[in-house]
Amino acid sequence: MTAASRVDDPGSQLVEEYAELAVRVGANVGAGQHVFVQTQLENAPFARAVAAAAYAAGARFVDVHYADQVVRRSFVEAAGEEMLDYSPPWLLRRIESMHELRAAEITIFGDPTPGLFAAVDGDRLGRAHPREYARRLMEIRSFDRTINWTIVAAPSPGWAEQVFGAPDLERLCEALRKAVRLDEPDPIAAWRAHLDRLNRRATSLNRRRFDALRFRGPGTDLTVGLLEVSHWVSGDSETIDGRRFCTNLPTEEVYTTPDPARTEGIVRATRPLTPRPGLVVEGLSLRFEQGRIVELHARSGEEILHGQLALDPRAPFLGEVALVDGDSRVGKLHTTFYNTLLDENATCHIAYGASFPRATSYQPGGNTAPVHADIMIGGPELIVDGITRDGTTTAILRNDIWLLADCD
Amino acid sequence: MTAASRVDDPGSQLVEEYAELAVRVGANVGAGQHVFVQTQLENAPFARAVAAAAYAAGARFVDVHYADQVVRRSFVEAAGEEMLDYSPPWLLRRIESMHELRAAEITIFGDPTPGLFAAVDGDRLGRAHPREYARRLMEIRSFDRTINWTIVAAPSPGWAEQVFGAPDLERLCEALRKAVRLDEPDPIAAWRAHLDRLNRRATSLNRRRFDALRFRGPGTDLTVGLLEVSHWVSGDSETIDGRRFCTNLPTEEVYTTPDPARTEGIVRATRPLTPRPGLVVEGLSLRFEQGRIVELHARSGEEILHGQLALDPRAPFLGEVALVDGDSRVGKLHTTFYNTLLDENATCHIAYGASFPRATSYQPGGNTAPVHADIMIGGPELIVDGITRDGTTTAILRNDIWLLADCD
Repeated sequence: MTAASRVDDPGSQLVEEYAELAVRVGANVGAGQHVFVQTQLENAPFARAVAAAAYAAGARFVDVHYADQVVRRSFVEAAGEEMLDYSPPWLLRRIESMHELRAAEITIFGDPTPGLFAAVDGDRLGRAHPREYARRLMEIRSFDRTINWTIVAAPSPGWAEQVFGAPDLERLCEALRKAVRLDEPDPIAAWRAHLDRLNRRATSLNRRRFDALRFRGPGTDLTVGLLEVSHWVSGDSETIDGRRFCTNLPTEEVYTTPDPARTEGIVRATRPLTPRPGLVVEGLSLRFEQGRIVELHARSGEEILHGQLALDPRAPFLGEVALVDGDSRVGKLHTTFYNTLLDENATCHIAYGASFPRATSYQPGGNTAPVHADIMIGGPELIVDGITRDGTTTAILRNDIWLLADCD
Repeated sequence: MTAASRVDDPGSQLVEEYAELAVRVGANVGAGQHVFVQTQLENAPFARAVAAAAYAAGARFVDVHYADQVVRRSFVEAAGEEMLDYSPPWLLRRIESMHELRAAEITIFGDPTPGLFAAVDGDRLGRAHPREYARRLMEIRSFDRTINWTIVAAPSPGWAEQVFGAPDLERLCEALRKAVRLDEPDPIAAWRAHLDRLNRRATSLNRRRFDALRFRGPGTDLTVGLLEVSHWVSGDSETIDGRRFCTNLPTEEVYTTPDPARTEGIVRATRPLTPRPGLVVEGLSLRFEQGRIVELHARSGEEILHGQLALDPRAPFLGEVALVDGDSRVGKLHTTFYNTLLDENATCHIAYGASFPRATSYQPGGNTAPVHADIMIGGPELIVDGITRDGTTTAILRNDIWLLADCD
C-alpha cells in the first residue's frame, strides 16, 4: 500500500490513529524495544501502520507475523489427527524471543473473511489448536509478565458486511472510533481517565470481598463462586519491569477469577460467540454442576464448542467472570460485532478455560486449561448481585446501571 | 480468496497450474513431508495454491511465511546501523526445522509493488540484509542438501505494469505459461525432457575440461578462469536422501563455479539487474582485476551494488558463470522481467558472491560470500569460447546458437 492509496481508503484515517493508540496506550512501546505483531494477512494495512508508529516511537525491530486463514483451512481439511494441535518450533522460538527481549507484542484481531470456515467439519475445527503455542504465549503475557502487550481489532469490508449486512467500511470505522475513544479531543488522556475509573471499580469490588456473584435474567440463574484469592482487575497492567500497558483496546470490563469448582445453574448467552475469527456460535445455553459444564446447546456452531471443551479436562470449567455496565462505549453502539474483543466489552461475560494470573494476584487456584472462550451473558434484563460469605447480598447491576459505590 | 473469486481472476488458472508444477516438479514434495513456503504477502493467492497442492500431494504440514515489503521499508528507513544485518532467531529456528525435518521448501518470487523502495537510501538498502539467515538457508539448500527446494515467480498486476507498462496480468500470465512449459500437453514430461537436455549439455562441458571461458561483445571482453574442481550442472538436483528436485522454475541454464581469483577484463550487462525485488540497476558495466571487481558503473541503482559489495570482503569476486542459448523459453519471450529468476534464464550470466557447492562437486575453492547477485551478459552479439589449459579454444555460443556437441 502506497501513501497515495491510503488517502483514498475510507478506513485509513481510523487505522492510522488506532495503530498509534495501540503503540502509545495499548502496548506502550518503549524506545529500543523489539515489537512483535500478529495478525491475518488481510489486516496488513493495520500492521503496517503499527510498524510505522512503533518505529516512530523508537522501536528497535518490528516483526510482523501474518497468518493465512485460507492456508489454515487447507490444513484443517487435510491434516492428520495427530497434527491438529501442532505448534511449530519456530513459532515457539518466536515467543521465547519476545520473552528474552522483554518485547512489546501487539495482536491485531478482526475477521476479514467471515464464513471462510463454514463448510469445514466443526469438531476438527474446534480441536485444531496449537496448544503449546497458546499456552506459552498466555504464560509470558500473564504470568512471566515479561512483555507489554495489547489486542486491537482491524476494520475490513468483510467484517463490516458481517456486522451491518453490507461491506460498509466507513460505518465500521465510525463504530470503532467511538469504541476506542478516538472521538475524544485527547484520546490518550481519555484512556488514562477511563482506566482510572475501571481501576476504582475493581478496588470497590475487592474491598467488598464477595464470595460469589449471582446472575439472573431470561434463561439465566447462575451462581459463580469466587476464590479467597480472587482479585478484581481492569485491562490496565504492568510488566515485571514496571512498564504500564493496556491489554485490550477497547476495554470496558473489570474481571476476576472464579473458583473453578463452584459454578452452579443455567445461563443463556445474550450475544453470539466468536470463539475464533470466522466461527460463530448462536443461541447458546449452558448448565453447570459443581463448576463443570454438563449441558451445552446452541442453535449453530455447537460442535465447535464440543471440540474445544474436549481439548482438555479443565476446559469445561470457568476461568473468568467479568462485569460491564451500560456506560460501555461498545455496549452503547448496540451492535453485535462477531468479534470477541468488541463483544465481550459490550456486556457482562463469563469464560470457560484459562484464568488470568493477575486476577488471583498470581496465587494458584484458577483454571489452567489451554483454551479460553468468552460467553456474553449481560444486558438490561440481567440482575447481578454480590454475595459475601455471611450471605449478605449487594446489588451490583440493575438495568445495566452500576450500583456499587466506589471505595477510596 | 474464495473459489468463486478465483474464477474471475485472470491469473488464477495459471497460478493453480504453476503452483502444482512447483509442488510436483520443483520441490517434488513427498508424502508426509513438511513444506515451508516463503513469499511476500501480495503473493498470497500463489502461496495458497501451493499449500492446497502440497496437501493434495500428502504434505504433513505447510508453513507459509509472508514477508511485508512495506514493513521492511519502514525498517530500512528507521533501523539502527547495527540492526541492518539482523537475522531474527525465530527465522533461524525455522531454517533449522526445515533441516531437521528433511522438509520441502518453496520460495515464491515476484515483485507485486515495483518502485516501493525508490525513495529509500540505496546504500542502506544494499546493506540491509539478514546475513546469517541467508547464509544458513543457502547452506541447507546447497551444502547440507537436506531439503528439496525450488524457486518460482508469482504474477501480479504490479509486476505486469513494470514489465509491459500496463497492469496486464493476463499478458504476464501468458508469458509465464510459456516460460514454465505449461503450454505443453504434458508439462511434467516436458520438464523431464528439458532437464535431461540441460544435463547432457552440462556433461559435454564437463568432458571438455575448460580452464577458462572468454566472453566478447559490445563493451565486453572478459575471461573467467575455472577451477580444477569446477563442475557444470543444471537445476536438476537431488537431496542427500536421494529425492530429486528442480531448484528453479523456469530454469534454462547450465552453470559452474569460477576460480574467484581469475576473472580479468570488462563486461557490460545486457539487461537490468534486480538484486532484490523492487531494486533495479540499469546500465551496469564492470572491470575485473585478478578476480576482483575494481570498477563498477551504473546508470541507476549503483549505490545498491556498492552497499552489497561492501558487505563482505568476498562479495566483489565471482561465484557463478552460467550459459544459456537462444533456445531458452524465457529468452524467446524477448522481455525484460525485472525479476532475477526469469531474467537470468533468458541469457548467459555471471554472479558475484556465493558459489554453489554442487558446481565444485562439494570441493572447496568457490566463493563463500554471504551474498549472490546475477548479472546478465548474454545476447546474440556475445561470443562465448571455452579455453583449455593448453590454449585450445572451442566455440560454445555464436549468435545465441549452442555449438558444442553433446557427449555421451
